[in-house]
Amino acid sequence: MFAFEYDQEIVVIDGGLKFPEEDMLGVDIVIPDTSYLVENKEKISAFLITHGHEDHIGGLPYILKQIPKPVYGTKLTLGLLEGKLREKGMLADCELNQIHPGMKLQVSKHIEAEFFKVNHSIPDTVGICLRTPAGLIVHSGDFKIDHTPVDGQVMDFSRLARFGDEGVLTAMIDSTNAERPGFTQSETTVGETIAEVLREATGRVLLATFASNVHRIQQVIDAAAKYKRKVAVNGRSMVNVVGIAMEMGYLKDSHNVLTDLDGIKKLPPHKVVLLTTGSQGEPMSALSRIANSEHRRLEILPGDTVIFAANPIPGNEKFVSRTVDNLFRLGADVIYESVSGTHVSGHASQEEIKLMLSLLRPKYALPIHGEYRHCIHFKKLALNMGIPEKNIPILKIGEMWELSADAAKHVSTVPSGQVLVDGLGIGDVGNIVLRDRKQLSMDGIMVVVMSLEKGSGKLLSGPDIVSRGFVYVRESEDLMSESRKVVRKFLTENGTNHEWSVIKSGIRDVLGKFLYDKTRRHPMIIPIIMEV
Amino acid sequence: MFAFEYDQEIVVIDGGLKFPEEDMLGVDIVIPDTSYLVENKEKISAFLITHGHEDHIGGLPYILKQIPKPVYGTKLTLGLLEGKLREKGMLADCELNQIHPGMKLQVSKHIEAEFFKVNHSIPDTVGICLRTPAGLIVHSGDFKIDHTPVDGQVMDFSRLARFGDEGVLTAMIDSTNAERPGFTQSETTVGETIAEVLREATGRVLLATFASNVHRIQQVIDAAAKYKRKVAVNGRSMVNVVGIAMEMGYLKDSHNVLTDLDGIKKLPPHKVVLLTTGSQGEPMSALSRIANSEHRRLEILPGDTVIFAANPIPGNEKFVSRTVDNLFRLGADVIYESVSGTHVSGHASQEEIKLMLSLLRPKYALPIHGEYRHCIHFKKLALNMGIPEKNIPILKIGEMWELSADAAKHVSTVPSGQVLVDGLGIGDVGNIVLRDRKQLSMDGIMVVVMSLEKGSGKLLSGPDIVSRGFVYVRESEDLMSESRKVVRKFLTENGTNHEWSVIKSGIRDVLGKFLYDKTRRHPMIIPIIMEV
Repeated sequence: MFAFEYDQEIVVIDGGLKFPEEDMLGVDIVIPDTSYLVENKEKISAFLITHGHEDHIGGLPYILKQIPKPVYGTKLTLGLLEGKLREKGMLADCELNQIHPGMKLQVSKHIEAEFFKVNHSIPDTVGICLRTPAGLIVHSGDFKIDHTPVDGQVMDFSRLARFGDEGVLTAMIDSTNAERPGFTQSETTVGETIAEVLREATGRVLLATFASNVHRIQQVIDAAAKYKRKVAVNGRSMVNVVGIAMEMGYLKDSHNVLTDLDGIKKLPPHKVVLLTTGSQGEPMSALSRIANSEHRRLEILPGDTVIFAANPIPGNEKFVSRTVDNLFRLGADVIYESVSGTHVSGHASQEEIKLMLSLLRPKYALPIHGEYRHCIHFKKLALNMGIPEKNIPILKIGEMWELSADAAKHVSTVPSGQVLVDGLGIGDVGNIVLRDRKQLSMDGIMVVVMSLEKGSGKLLSGPDIVSRGFVYVRESEDLMSESRKVVRKFLTENGTNHEWSVIKSGIRDVLGKFLYDKTRRHPMIIPIIMEV
Repeated sequence: MFAFEYDQEIVVIDGGLKFPEEDMLGVDIVIPDTSYLVENKEKISAFLITHGHEDHIGGLPYILKQIPKPVYGTKLTLGLLEGKLREKGMLADCELNQIHPGMKLQVSKHIEAEFFKVNHSIPDTVGICLRTPAGLIVHSGDFKIDHTPVDGQVMDFSRLARFGDEGVLTAMIDSTNAERPGFTQSETTVGETIAEVLREATGRVLLATFASNVHRIQQVIDAAAKYKRKVAVNGRSMVNVVGIAMEMGYLKDSHNVLTDLDGIKKLPPHKVVLLTTGSQGEPMSALSRIANSEHRRLEILPGDTVIFAANPIPGNEKFVSRTVDNLFRLGADVIYESVSGTHVSGHASQEEIKLMLSLLRPKYALPIHGEYRHCIHFKKLALNMGIPEKNIPILKIGEMWELSADAAKHVSTVPSGQVLVDGLGIGDVGNIVLRDRKQLSMDGIMVVVMSLEKGSGKLLSGPDIVSRGFVYVRESEDLMSESRKVVRKFLTENGTNHEWSVIKSGIRDVLGKFLYDKTRRHPMIIPIIMEV
């Protein structure tokens, strides 16, 4: 999410979420800290959305609840956002306005937004040019250059060139693939590969890809029509997106190849394509359950071909490998390498980034949408193109920069960062809870309970010990009874008539040491004293 | 680990460990279940070890404790194993016998072992041919073919060819890289790239690689000598292996470039190379701590070049990415892609596997050392070379196969699988403990304690509630006091004079439901009743 502020006006582009890092135990999603925007709510005139991927719209249901301002996006983007808002019962309270590429919009007193077509791995993606009194700011959105896109809509080069002629103060460019030399391949090359597999396969073809990659799904439908196969759709998000995209006209099934799971049951294998979620090997996804023989309605048949039409997102490599192994075990043939031609990226490689910079000829070039190393690579590209180093700042989250004809200056830093969402809790899981979850996950917990007499502090009952996630209790009775002895000995030697906090911390120390000596583990120890 | 049984004799090859999967929370290492071998201990005559990597020797300290039989390995392999055995105080009780390539050894009445030189990413790696009455079994070990190895010792092709002439019943071939077309590059190509970086860099060069890759370390030393730099070694395992390898003569420092951390402090940056652990971005490794500015003695200086001379092992990709990002942030230049030429694999690609099969011309070809998909690719290669499908069995762990001139038959399955080691506990962490750790890690725990009067069951004290890893308690006082109310209400309505197990399970139900409604989380709920 980026916020652009001029005088008393703020315009926001995108509002995404991210998925939790592996150390954010139990966390569902991560949304941006928007305290600064909430504080300056009255200045905000609009949320402009580039496209419908989770990392661009997923935070909006949370953000719009606190900042109920108009949202602008293309038809498919709004369709996907509507689904999210409806789920949270918020749809009626949100103002969603449809825009289309080429449109100009006076979003606030001094700021005009002009939307332009870009290619990406979801249809209806736009970039946004903000025309401000300080100059033009061009935000690429997530983009690639596809000269032969599936829907025939190529990027609007002439509009970009006109921005360049008008004079661009700042270009903010997708740097996700700034490490990759050359050009990103066209999405249509994937269609050709998929069609070839459908032609050659003698059994069923199962294809896993991102649900939102509507153009890839269109190509599967087209190839199926060509080779007389029917296509069933499987997996919640795939069914959901295909439904929305069909309804809105982004998917066309002119040969009526789409059917349901029952529809393919009756067909011979070589007449069947199954589109499914699970291209990342996510343990609960449809494809993983099929690969584990745990899917309620589908199983692998020998002779099946499974295509992973996606690359593993960093962190998912092992899940994908495991799913591939399991599918092979069940007798399927599996096509899963990027070299197989069944996937292309949705992001611009180096030559595309350079072309973008050449068209825009900005004063300031800012890398966006990449890890730090991608930003560094973007910077190298921009330097090579003659942009001075001081004009290629790498912005950190929360930094406020002032960009003017004179200079790019870091003027202040606002509260920012990650807000963790766990169930209904937004931001209530912080470092302490995560640290506890981490310790619990490594060595479990031991609870020590005892009743002491009010006043005298006499031990009335216990110590009783309960452990979870520490050792297998049934086979560790000796350890448990020795642990009780350790606590009892401590109470005898030190008395029970102290501050309870002193007794508790003493028990934690002696028992922790005893258990570490015996097991080399550090369970969390919770002494509980009941006053009776 | 493979066991070979003939009549009343068993010979074992290797005894490795694996590192825990991400769902094995808190587990340190995983070793093989050797119950079958323990039961048949008296038949076992020897452990033959191919090389000194963890996945080939790491399980031995545990296995030898239960099965104290002679171990045979090359000098470096035994040197690394000795270190492990010494740490566990077992060295004096183990019989370690040094072998060398080319040597023949009557390991049991009917079985002769012949060791042959192969190339791999650690020196002193051998393959093993077992000459049995049933025929020759050739086990490749982990191998690649390097025509220009750093130590000049090429694979023993003529010996392999002679095995082929003699007639090989079974070839067991490293299939780790069976997916990769072509040949694996020579280790010396890495040396050239590293030398080039050392020549070009104007500041310090930090190089992270696997500690056991002694030949790569030798090449760093050689390049440093050539370009007049000194080399310091950093990180526990790197210091350890360099020490052993120097002592045993596997590393040579004829120009005295090796020094310590103090030694490089005084030198200008362009005179310094730092060899370090952390090529996998492991959070506690030396390089990660440097990248996080948390290393006690080392920090990144602008102008430093950091080389990752290793590819991420599956599962470590995110750790590596994060470390790379952090190093860039501190101003270093980072060389980290496999395309950069700073790493080559230690395993044979497809053409090398084919060459091995051509030399050995075995009746049975068995893929070893790969995931299932690699075994499938190996099978495809072997099929293409004319070996019939029934002669390319893919063995599952625990399966016992009988291989004879007539046929390869799966005759039985023995107890097998993974034994989890956590601290001092071997096998005491099983499914129940892991399931508890998983639940604790996701949603934490809530302990509910109350004292009931013996006999009457009257509530004397409590219910008291303690939670960890569930919500941030200081900001959830309302939730805690409502939880106590829910429990008290349950006790009032249902009485306290029931079986305690009934009361406990009732509390778990009502409180679990209440907390889920309020938070959409499922903490583990532990009711504890104290009888006073």
